[in-house]
Amino acid sequence: MSDAQRQDAAARGDFETALADSDLLEIRVWLRLLTCTNLVERRIRRNLRADFEITLPRFDLLAQLQRAPEGLTMGALSRRLMVSNGNVTGLIERLAGEGLVERQAIPGDRRTQVVRLTAAGERALVKMLPIHHRWVAAMFAGLDRDEMTTLLNLLARLKLSLADDGGATDGDRI
Amino acid sequence: MSDAQRQDAAARGDFETALADSDLLEIRVWLRLLTCTNLVERRIRRNLRADFEITLPRFDLLAQLQRAPEGLTMGALSRRLMVSNGNVTGLIERLAGEGLVERQAIPGDRRTQVVRLTAAGERALVKMLPIHHRWVAAMFAGLDRDEMTTLLNLLARLKLSLADDGGATDGDRI
Repeated sequence: MSDAQRQDAAARGDFETALADSDLLEIRVWLRLLTCTNLVERRIRRNLRADFEITLPRFDLLAQLQRAPEGLTMGALSRRLMVSNGNVTGLIERLAGEGLVERQAIPGDRRTQVVRLTAAGERALVKMLPIHHRWVAAMFAGLDRDEMTTLLNLLARLKLSLADDGGATDGDRI
Repeated sequence: MSDAQRQDAAARGDFETALADSDLLEIRVWLRLLTCTNLVERRIRRNLRADFEITLPRFDLLAQLQRAPEGLTMGALSRRLMVSNGNVTGLIERLAGEGLVERQAIPGDRRTQVVRLTAAGERALVKMLPIHHRWVAAMFAGLDRDEMTTLLNLLARLKLSLADDGGATDGDRI
C-alpha cells in the first residue's frame, strides 16, 4: 500500500487498514533484515567450506583473535563471536591442537586463561581475509557507496534504538 | 575517515589508505548488519522464553505455517524457516504431540506429508503475534517511518544484489 493509498484509507475512516499496514512496517523491516543476514551468512559459510575447508565459527574465532593481539579471555572471546557457537571451549581445544591458537595462564590468576592467535593462525587467517572481503564486496556490489553509507548509518541508528530499548546487557560489538 | 579525508589521502597519492578504507566499507556494513540481526534475534528469543515459554524455532515454525493455510510439505517448511533449526522433524513431532500442528498424507502420494496449524496452534500463535509485534516496534522506535522505509528499500537492493551475485538457489523468503 502506498502512502497515498494509506492516506485515502485513513480519510475514508478505514483506520484499521491504515493502521495495520503502518504497524507492520517494523515487522517487514525486521524480517527483511533477518533474510538478508541469513543469505549473506549462508553464502559465506558455503564459500569458506568450499575454498578453505573451514567452518564459519572457526573463521569467526580466528578473526576476533586477530583484532585483539594482546589476547582474550574465554569469556571475552565468547561475547565477541558474531556467529552462535555451541561449544567455544571445544573449538579452542581443537584450534590449539592444530597450532592455530595458544592458551596462556594470566600471571597471578591460575584460573583464567588468555587465548591468542599463533603465527600459524595469523598466516591462515591472512590468507583468507582478502578472499572473504572479495565475496562480501561481490554480494554488496548492487549498492553504490552512498547507499552503503546510508545503510551503515541507518543500522547505527537501529543499534542506538536497541540500546535505548533496554539492551544495555547485550554486549554490542561493532 | 571522512569523505573529505579520503579525498585528501587520494590527492596526496596515498592510494593505499584511500583504497583500504573504501574497500572495507562492505565489511563494515556486513558486520553491522549481522550485529543488529543478532541483537534483535537474541532479544526476541529471550522475550519469547520469558513471556510465553516458547523457543524461537517453535514460534518461527508456527508463524510460517500460519502464512500457509493450505499447509506445507516438510521440505517447503524447512526452507521457509527464518532461524536455523537442527531438527525440523523432531520439532514437528513434538508440536503435533501437543496438538498445535497436524500432519496429513497427500492423497496419491503416501510418502509426502503436509503440515498444518491446528485451531489450537492458531490460537496459541494469535495470542503471541501482537506482543511480538510490540517488541519489534519498541526495538525499532528510534527510526522514524521514512528511515524505516529507506532501510527496507536498501535491504531490497541488497537482496537483488545477492541474487545477481549468483544466489538463485538460496530460496528467498521476503
